[in-house]
Amino acid sequence: MPIASALSTLAAVLQRGDLRPRKGEQTRAAILDVALGLAARDGLEGLTIGTLAEQLKMSKSGVFAHFGSREELQLAVLHEYVQRFVDSVLRPAIKKPRGLPRLEALLERWVALLAREITQGCIMVAGSIEYDDRPGPLRDRMVAIVTGWKAELLKAIRQSVVEGHLRADVDAHQMTFEIYGLMLALHQDARLLRSADSIRRTRKGISRILADAASPDQPSGAPRPRRSRAPSSSTPSSRPKG
Amino acid sequence: MPIASALSTLAAVLQRGDLRPRKGEQTRAAILDVALGLAARDGLEGLTIGTLAEQLKMSKSGVFAHFGSREELQLAVLHEYVQRFVDSVLRPAIKKPRGLPRLEALLERWVALLAREITQGCIMVAGSIEYDDRPGPLRDRMVAIVTGWKAELLKAIRQSVVEGHLRADVDAHQMTFEIYGLMLALHQDARLLRSADSIRRTRKGISRILADAASPDQPSGAPRPRRSRAPSSSTPSSRPKG
Repeated sequence: MPIASALSTLAAVLQRGDLRPRKGEQTRAAILDVALGLAARDGLEGLTIGTLAEQLKMSKSGVFAHFGSREELQLAVLHEYVQRFVDSVLRPAIKKPRGLPRLEALLERWVALLAREITQGCIMVAGSIEYDDRPGPLRDRMVAIVTGWKAELLKAIRQSVVEGHLRADVDAHQMTFEIYGLMLALHQDARLLRSADSIRRTRKGISRILADAASPDQPSGAPRPRRSRAPSSSTPSSRPKG
Repeated sequence: MPIASALSTLAAVLQRGDLRPRKGEQTRAAILDVALGLAARDGLEGLTIGTLAEQLKMSKSGVFAHFGSREELQLAVLHEYVQRFVDSVLRPAIKKPRGLPRLEALLERWVALLAREITQGCIMVAGSIEYDDRPGPLRDRMVAIVTGWKAELLKAIRQSVVEGHLRADVDAHQMTFEIYGLMLALHQDARLLRSADSIRRTRKGISRILADAASPDQPSGAPRPRRSRAPSSSTPSSRPKG
């Protein structure tokens, strides 16, 4: 799996994010803002230059001036999505101390983002299904983003092991897989079933995963034979919401 | 949440399944078989009477004779999917003794079905995204099926508590939520990322959830401070595949 190249996708976005947008880029940014909303509603495959132009009350050729093709537009929307994901999830979390504080911040911010996306739908979750059997640049980008994000989670888990916050024998890939599952379940339960407690359930699941992996040297890793009754005080779900 | 009415959806399918198809229904069944394949590939929303007729080398009006509209065709495909799901997952599992044996059989058969669906895609997983914001009879049916299936899992978990196989304080809704997440992660990892170990990871996750919930009176519920190193011998993942 091209983890290194995928990581560089997120890293490149991080670097670009430090630059202020040039003036000529502001119209493009405004178009992308509307396009993001449309893609969240209709899926990236439902996004067309025609719909976008209509929504913006612009001519199709006006939109074409910024994005030469529908695919270029879709790729730009995906790029913009990643940039915002990095800004709201990754960038603030990596300011936290290495180890469990950073890992917990990553997960809590990811949950919070998904919670904000419930009304419109998440471009990444829906896109993972849309492009799972549709070869091409969009699928490739989608795979790179998911893989890159998983690599960030893996890194945070491994740093938590190095810091002595998680056990040395923790299976970081397994943890990442299970955490991703909770996020997908959140999206399905909240949007398809309109369940009111999917966010709380996701936090509780994360708490259980972190508690299972906690180092016995850590206060939060004390043996808890009835773990569902004693959530770790340092995990995101320690702040019950409902 | 209309669990009772949803349950009756699956129950009704179970009863219908006991009848042998009448002769006149065989053409319809053959059409549905092809339609199921197309819906798995293109999504239920991608399924049209035109594509189906082309695939079957039939006239459109020939297909229309069996399904009066595209929506009726989509609903029939969904119904057929549930019937097969019940036949391959639910029906064999409920022959197992109540409690953990039945719950484990349900989960292992569900994993096995998803594993078979990896190449084509799962109509239910993809449909959950397709219809999450598309009101109408298909969304309603999708919600009823997912809710009904969750109710079957809840019942099996609660019976496991009654039988003394799982702890009395187990949160059955939380378990169901987390298990569903593993299945969604399996689908994403296997299809988008083409990961080779998603089935093994799903089984391992299920094993951890069941071990955490195991009654201390059960041999498989013995305290295991390093649970990732000591999977329960009675859980599906005790048969490692890779």
